[in-house]
This record gives sequence, C-alpha cells and structure tokens, in this order.
Amino acid sequence: MAILDGKGVAAQLREELRQEIALHAVRPPRLDVILVGEEVASSIYVKGKVAACLEVGIEAHVHRHTSEVSQRELLDEIADLNENPFVDGILVQLPLPKGIDERLVTWAVDPAKDVDGFHPMNRGKLLLGEERALFPCTPLAVSELFARYAISTQGKHVVIVGRSDVVGKPLAVLLLQKGMRGNATVTVAHSFTEDLASLSVQADILVAALGRPRFITAPMVKEGAVVIDVGINALVAGQEGERRKIVGDVDYVEVAKKCSWITPVPGGVGPMTIAMLLSNTWKAYRSHL
Amino acid sequence: MAILDGKGVAAQLREELRQEIALHAVRPPRLDVILVGEEVASSIYVKGKVAACLEVGIEAHVHRHTSEVSQRELLDEIADLNENPFVDGILVQLPLPKGIDERLVTWAVDPAKDVDGFHPMNRGKLLLGEERALFPCTPLAVSELFARYAISTQGKHVVIVGRSDVVGKPLAVLLLQKGMRGNATVTVAHSFTEDLASLSVQADILVAALGRPRFITAPMVKEGAVVIDVGINALVAGQEGERRKIVGDVDYVEVAKKCSWITPVPGGVGPMTIAMLLSNTWKAYRSHL
Repeated sequence: MAILDGKGVAAQLREELRQEIALHAVRPPRLDVILVGEEVASSIYVKGKVAACLEVGIEAHVHRHTSEVSQRELLDEIADLNENPFVDGILVQLPLPKGIDERLVTWAVDPAKDVDGFHPMNRGKLLLGEERALFPCTPLAVSELFARYAISTQGKHVVIVGRSDVVGKPLAVLLLQKGMRGNATVTVAHSFTEDLASLSVQADILVAALGRPRFITAPMVKEGAVVIDVGINALVAGQEGERRKIVGDVDYVEVAKKCSWITPVPGGVGPMTIAMLLSNTWKAYRSHL
Repeated sequence: MAILDGKGVAAQLREELRQEIALHAVRPPRLDVILVGEEVASSIYVKGKVAACLEVGIEAHVHRHTSEVSQRELLDEIADLNENPFVDGILVQLPLPKGIDERLVTWAVDPAKDVDGFHPMNRGKLLLGEERALFPCTPLAVSELFARYAISTQGKHVVIVGRSDVVGKPLAVLLLQKGMRGNATVTVAHSFTEDLASLSVQADILVAALGRPRFITAPMVKEGAVVIDVGINALVAGQEGERRKIVGDVDYVEVAKKCSWITPVPGGVGPMTIAMLLSNTWKAYRSHL
C-alpha cells in the first residue's frame, strides 16, 4: 500500500500556481468569498481558503454577514461582484442560514466567476464534456490526484459511493467522459443500493463520498484497489472511545492493508480541493482577461 | 417475456396530451423545426415529428435550408424564434452539415424553448436534479416507459451501455436522482469497458444505447432482466442475408427468451421519444404562458 499524499501534491500545485501567476498575471487574480453566519466550521474553511489564496498571489476578499442578512442583500452583493471587472472568482460559503435559498443565491453568480462550479451552465458543460467551463473542486481534486500519480482511469471500473451534487454525481460524469482523464466504467451507488459490498468489491478504483465515518470496511474492497476517501467526519471526544478527531468514510487502518493506493484523512482529498479552488480562480482570471 | 409496447404507450400519451391541450391551451402550442440539408433520414424524422404535433394540436413550422446555409443565418433565425412569443419550442434537427458548429447553433436556442434538452442550462439542471427544466427526449422516453409499466428503478442496478450525450449520460443521471423515478444504482459502460458481459449480466435493467446492431446477446443478459433497446440500426439489403430492415442494439430473438420485459425495435423507445418531444413542447408552453 502506498499513500496518495494530497497534502504534498497540493503544496506542489500551489507552488506551480504561484510561479505561473507571478509570471503571467498583469494584476493579482482576485477571489471574493461571501460568508454568512457564525458557524465555526465555515469560518475555518474560509480561513484556509484565504490563506491558500495569499500563498499563491491571489487576492482574497471576505464579505462577512450575520445570519440575519436577507437574501436580497446577498443577491445585490453578488450582482455587484459579477459586474466588478477586478473580481475573478466568487464563492458563496455553504451552508447558508435557513430561509435563504442556496440555489437561488449560488446560481446568481456569473458562470464565468463561479469557481465552485455550482452554476447549471457549468454543470451542463461538465455533463456535455465541454472543457471551457468551471467544474466543482472536489471532483477536480480527485482527477488531479490520479493525474499526478499517473493512475489511469481508462477502462477501469470506478465505483463511487454517494450521489451528492458536490462530489458523487459530478465526479461520475468527469471520469466517464472521453479523454485521458476519463474513459472509466463508472458505477454510482448510494443509500438505495442493494448489496453494496458485492459492487464495491469489484471496483478497481473505489471512491467513498457518503459522509459516514469508516463506513467502507476491508471486506468491501478488492485486493489491490485504489481507494479515495472524500469523507470528512468529526468524531467528538468520547465517541468510539476516542479523542476528538477527523476521520474519513473509509476504515483506513484495515483497508490500507489491502489496497494499492489510499488517500489519508486528513491530508488527502481535502487540501487538493482547496488547491483546485485556486486553480479555478486562475482559470477564471485567464478567461476574463 | 413481455413486450414494452412503446408504440401503444406513445399513442396513449399523445391522446392524453391532445385532450389536455384541447382543454387548457388558450392558443395552439407551437414547435418550430430547423431542417438543414437533404439527408433522407432527417427529412423522415422531421415528417414524423410534424405529424405527431398535428395529431395532438401542436402547430408545427418547418424551416428548411439547403446545406449551403451559413451558420450566421441559422443563428439569426434562432434569435428571431427565441424572441417570438408565439413560438414555444425550437428544435434543430441534427446532424448539421460540416462547417457548422452544432454546439454553437443548438446552444443558441433559448433554454426555455429548448425542447430537445440540449442547452447546457437544461443539462446542468438535469445533473442537479432540478425539475423545472427541459430534458432530452430519449432519456425521458425510457423513464416514462418504466412509469407506465410500473417498473420501479429504485434500488435496481441499471447498466447502460453507451455514453452518448443524447442517451447514455443523461439517462444515467436521470435514473440516479433522488425520487420515485430514480434511486437506481447506475453503471455506465462503453467502448473502453473491460469485460462488458460480466457487468451487463449483473443488470436488473439493461439499456443498450451504443448503436451497433444486435450487439447485446443472450449470454450478456441476466435471467429475468428488463431490457431497453435504444438502438436504431439500418441493415441494408443483403447484409446478414436479410432484406433491408431496422434492428436494435439487442439480439432480440435470443434475448427475449431470457428477460422479463423487452422493448422491440421498431415500436419501442422510438415512438416514445417523439411523444416526449410533444410533452416537452407542452411543458415549454405552460412555463412561458
């Protein structure tokens, strides 16, 4: 078993981006983040994103709002950012407070600045295999990890567990497309899937993205498979007799003994996802200019 | 084995639409078809669509062009139709002659009038599970056949052979979504798939949409499976010692002995697809008005 070192690859990616931006940008690319409410997790995520931006030479502006902000105010702010020629990327940190329509707000972002790849125009281009578009960061993160480790998906059977809009569905589409980074046979499984283990055990590449701690156990994994763990689950202190910690959707210790490659949690897909956000912002900058 | 009688269900669907339109439309819904070049197949398809429109009370206008028409002229015509408040649906019959960018032309259609569901906005909404949109007709046809025969896809393993933009990919997405008509475990296989038979034989529902005559043979099908044949292949006279005829992607005679349900070709998915075009036009009419 060998580790897919997302943390290390992400650092390398950031360094490459930093050099490219330093070399080619006529002004600093700029990412604007809209952050609503006081959720601690959201604040931590945004902090991480901002720090990553600064590291590579992307200007980051955070627009903070209390959870009392109205939908109208958010839409007006997005409209302003859409029109601002110095803003390359716009990111609305989710979740938004109850009473605010997340689709309405995220879909208000100009598709050309939609660095989270949430807009239907970008999703449609993803489904149609059109590359001049912005795609969601986690699927891109997984694809980029494969590319960096020269793990070919061509003709491989990829089983994705989870059908979310953020990971499962767009990743399935990405790996299914024609081309060097696609050409996989893809199965998407989820809560309705009968006998999941009999499917997952067939996977050459198994992607766990369902959000349940250590759900994928060793008997569900084929000997020599590549295992990608997208899960980020916080175990509270005392739960399962452990101290507070972050675990993935894969039972890492047991599965690692069996597979050829595995992503750790933390330090796997997570840091890659942030790196792809930077990469998307740079892509948006280049297509605007 | 029982037959999924697409021809019969499509006739019933048209009758239902005819009644609904007669009852609720304040003016006839209108579909405009752009037909370029002299391809015989395209002319036949358009003729069939126009006849179906008239049957249910949809006005059909065909805009014919020689293959010398310029892309600019087509785009101008589409812009006019987009603005015309009496036009509910716009369909560009494919293929277009060489030298014309099919994506550019089909993506010029107003998403609200895009009754073929080709526009990225509609594709994106499909991928995101947003129902207020227009989806491609063949995937809808398959889904509607299941509904009419009370064949549940929930928890079933659907294997789709073929990853086209017209059938394979959008159908996979449709059957994967949450909801009564979805909730399937979906595998998409294609030309890069290794050992297709070992996958297809696991399918509770097998969809053949690859465009190769009688490619799916009996050993590739599980006993009792539901088999959907989307293929329309013209065998020329003399080929395989036969007279000119249309066959599907499934070896019908042998597979029929083994499965629980099967669509014939012709008379299966084909007529349903045209019925869904009418249904989309009516949906577009209702959302405009």
